[in-house]
Amino acid sequence: MADHLASGSAGKPIRCKAAVARKAGEPLVIEDVIVAPPKACEVRIKIICTSLCHSDLTFWKLKDPPGCFPRILGHEAVGIVESVGEGVHEFVEGDYVVPVFLADCGECTDCRSKKSNLCSKLPFAISPWMPRDGTSRFTNIKEEILYHFIHVSSFSEYTVVDIAHVTKVDSAIPPNRACLLSCGVSTGFGAAWRTAGVEAGSTVVIFGLGVIGLGYNLAEVAEGARLCGATRIIGVDLNPEKFEIGKKFGLTDFINPTSCGNKSVSQVIKEMTDEGADYCFECVGLASLVQEAFDCCRKGWGKTIVLGVDKPGSQLTFSSFDVLLSGKIITGALFGGLKAKSDIPILVKKYINKELQLDEFVTHEMKFEDVNKAFELLVAGKCLRCVLWMEK
Amino acid sequence: MADHLASGSAGKPIRCKAAVARKAGEPLVIEDVIVAPPKACEVRIKIICTSLCHSDLTFWKLKDPPGCFPRILGHEAVGIVESVGEGVHEFVEGDYVVPVFLADCGECTDCRSKKSNLCSKLPFAISPWMPRDGTSRFTNIKEEILYHFIHVSSFSEYTVVDIAHVTKVDSAIPPNRACLLSCGVSTGFGAAWRTAGVEAGSTVVIFGLGVIGLGYNLAEVAEGARLCGATRIIGVDLNPEKFEIGKKFGLTDFINPTSCGNKSVSQVIKEMTDEGADYCFECVGLASLVQEAFDCCRKGWGKTIVLGVDKPGSQLTFSSFDVLLSGKIITGALFGGLKAKSDIPILVKKYINKELQLDEFVTHEMKFEDVNKAFELLVAGKCLRCVLWMEK
Ligand SMILES: [Zn+2]
Ligand SMILES: [Zn+2]
Ligand SMILES: [Zn+2]
Ligand SMILES: [Zn+2]
Repeated sequence: MADHLASGSAGKPIRCKAAVARKAGEPLVIEDVIVAPPKACEVRIKIICTSLCHSDLTFWKLKDPPGCFPRILGHEAVGIVESVGEGVHEFVEGDYVVPVFLADCGECTDCRSKKSNLCSKLPFAISPWMPRDGTSRFTNIKEEILYHFIHVSSFSEYTVVDIAHVTKVDSAIPPNRACLLSCGVSTGFGAAWRTAGVEAGSTVVIFGLGVIGLGYNLAEVAEGARLCGATRIIGVDLNPEKFEIGKKFGLTDFINPTSCGNKSVSQVIKEMTDEGADYCFECVGLASLVQEAFDCCRKGWGKTIVLGVDKPGSQLTFSSFDVLLSGKIITGALFGGLKAKSDIPILVKKYINKELQLDEFVTHEMKFEDVNKAFELLVAGKCLRCVLWMEK
Repeated sequence: MADHLASGSAGKPIRCKAAVARKAGEPLVIEDVIVAPPKACEVRIKIICTSLCHSDLTFWKLKDPPGCFPRILGHEAVGIVESVGEGVHEFVEGDYVVPVFLADCGECTDCRSKKSNLCSKLPFAISPWMPRDGTSRFTNIKEEILYHFIHVSSFSEYTVVDIAHVTKVDSAIPPNRACLLSCGVSTGFGAAWRTAGVEAGSTVVIFGLGVIGLGYNLAEVAEGARLCGATRIIGVDLNPEKFEIGKKFGLTDFINPTSCGNKSVSQVIKEMTDEGADYCFECVGLASLVQEAFDCCRKGWGKTIVLGVDKPGSQLTFSSFDVLLSGKIITGALFGGLKAKSDIPILVKKYINKELQLDEFVTHEMKFEDVNKAFELLVAGKCLRCVLWMEK
C-alpha cells in the first residue's frame, strides 16, 4: 500500500492510493497521489474506514460547479492522526478521529452558542479547497492539483483536514461503525434529537420519497425519533422495501402515496393521527413534498424539518394564511443541528451503551479498491450504508 | 341609553344601541337592536369600553365574504356580565370580563396542551354566528338578523359571547386599559413573549411597513420585546413618525427602507447587528417583506414570526437552500400564541405592577356614538388605539 511508515512520515509528503473522480459520473480511478503535510491548524489522517453517502453520489454526477474534477470525494470516515500541523495541540499522532464536513471551531459566536452549529469562522461551503488558505493538499504524481471535497476527501488512504473539522472519538467504537457518524446517521439522528427535539410519545412522519437508495435518511431519522421515544413513526415512500428496513429503526407505519386513492398523504396522516403529526421530516427537498409535510403537521405545534434540497434556486412555498393561523413551525438543519465536537462523542456513547443502532445501517463492507462497486450499489438503491476498508 | 335595568333583565331580550355596519366602507349606523338572552355556554355582557383594531377596519371595508352585512363589528372590549346562560357556572352576573376572538375551551387537546392556543373544539373562524349553534343573538327592531363578528361584536351596549371566548379579569385594571388586552396589545406582546420567546439581550426587528395607521403592531410587538429584555429593537417602516411613537415602547433604531440606498433592508440590518437579528416580526403579511424578514434573521437560530396576512391565497416563498442551510425558523401565531384565560390575567398583573405599558397606547378616547370619528382617525393613521366609552 502506501510507501511510508507511520513513524518518520511527519512533515513530509505521503504517496498513497486515492480514488480520484476524474469525470462526472465516470468510475473513480485509483491513483497514486501525493498528500502534503498538514499546515497550521491541520492534521493529516490515515483513513481506516470510509463509507458512501448520497452527497458523494450527487457531486460525482455533477458536471457543473460546484461540481469540479479531478476531485477526491468521500466525507464519511474515521482514521488515525498521522501527523499534526504547526501549533496544533488539540490532536496528537495516533488519535482516533472522525472528520466532519461542518466545522466546529469552538471560538466563534456560533460555536460558543448552544443554539447554532453553523460555525461563522469557517462557514459551510462546498469548497474544493482547504478552508483557511484556499489551497489543496493533494496532487498526483504529475503535480496535477486534485480538489478536496467538503473539507474531508476520505476516498484516500491519507487526507489532510482542518482541526475544526475533526472530532476525537472513543476507540471502543469500531471503525466500520464510527465512520457512519461523520455524516448520514448523525444528520438523521440529530434532526430528530437536536433540530426537532422529538419528545417521548410523539408522532413523527418521515418523507423519504424519491430518494435514490434504500431508506437513506428515512432510516436515520427514524432511528433518532425512536431513541427520542416517539411512539408512532410513519414513513412515506414509493418503495415498500423501505418499510421492512425502517422497522428495524422504529418505523411503525408506512404510506405509499400511490396507494392513497384520491386522498392526499396529509389527509391520510391526519386521519391516522390526532389531527396531524408532531414532527414531519422531509428528506428530499422537493417543494411539493415540503408543502405536504407542512400540511401533515398538527396545528398548534407541528414542526416541519427540511433535510433535503432539490436543486440550487428551488423555492419552498407555504400559504401565508396557514403559516399565520396554524402556529406550525418550519425549519431546516445542516448536520442535524449537531455540534461535531460535543455531540459526536455523545452518539458514540449511545452506541457503546447499545442505545443507538449503527450495525444495522451497514449492509455492505468491501475493500477500498472496490469503491466503484460501492457506487453501483448506491446508484441501484441496493445498500443502506456501504463501508470501505482501506486495509483489510 | 338602554331601556333596561341590570336587575331583572336576565332571561329577557335587551333593547339597546349598537353601531351597525350596513354597507362596506360606509359609516356605521347607531341603531336600536335586540340582544337575545344568552343560551347554554353563553354570557351576555354589558360593554363598558371597546377599542378599534385594524381587523374591524378590514372587515368593515370587505364587500365580499367573509365580509357580510348588516354586521356588528368590534372585538376589543371589556364589560360586566349581565346574565349567564343555562348551566354556566364559570361566570356570574357582575363579573368583569374581557371577550376574545380566539376560544379557550379548557377541555380540548389544544387547550389542555401548553404548546397550542388553537382550540380545536371551537376553532378560529371569521364567522358571522355564535360558535356552537351557528345562529345570531342580534336582531333589529324589524326582526332583521344582524351578524356577529369573530364571536365578540362589541360595538353594542350589550353582546352575547360564548364562555370559551370570555376571560375574567382583576377589576383593578381600568376599563379603558383592559379592553386593549382583547386583541392588539395581547397579540403583539404575546408574539414576542410566547411565540418567539424573546430573550434578554437579544436583537429584534419589527417590520411595520405598509400597515395603515400609526405603529399598529410595531408598537405592540416592541412593548413585548422590551419587556422580554431585548436590548436592541429595530423598527422598519416607511413612516418616520413610528419611530417617535415606538421609542416609548423600547424601539432603539429605525430604518426607513427608502433611505437604504442600493442596499436591501436585510443588508443594512446585518451590518448593524452581529450577522442578523435574533427575532424578526413581520406585521403585514406581504410575501416580499416576510422574505426580507427571513433574510434579516441571524443564521443558526434566527426566528421569523409572521403576524400579518396579505390576502387569502397569498403565498410565502423561501429559498429551499436557505431553509436547509441557515438553521433559521419560520413560524406564525394567532393572538400571539396566548391562551386567553391563563395569559390575559398575567398581562393584567404586569400592567398593575407597572411593567406592561397600556396607557401609552391610548391616544384617543371618545363616546361610543362617535364610533365613526374613531374609524376616520384609524383610516387616516392618526391614532394608536382609540377607546370608545359606552357611557360617559
Ligand atoms: Zn466556529
Ligand atoms: Zn453525507
Ligand atoms: Zn379548546
Ligand atoms: Zn384585533
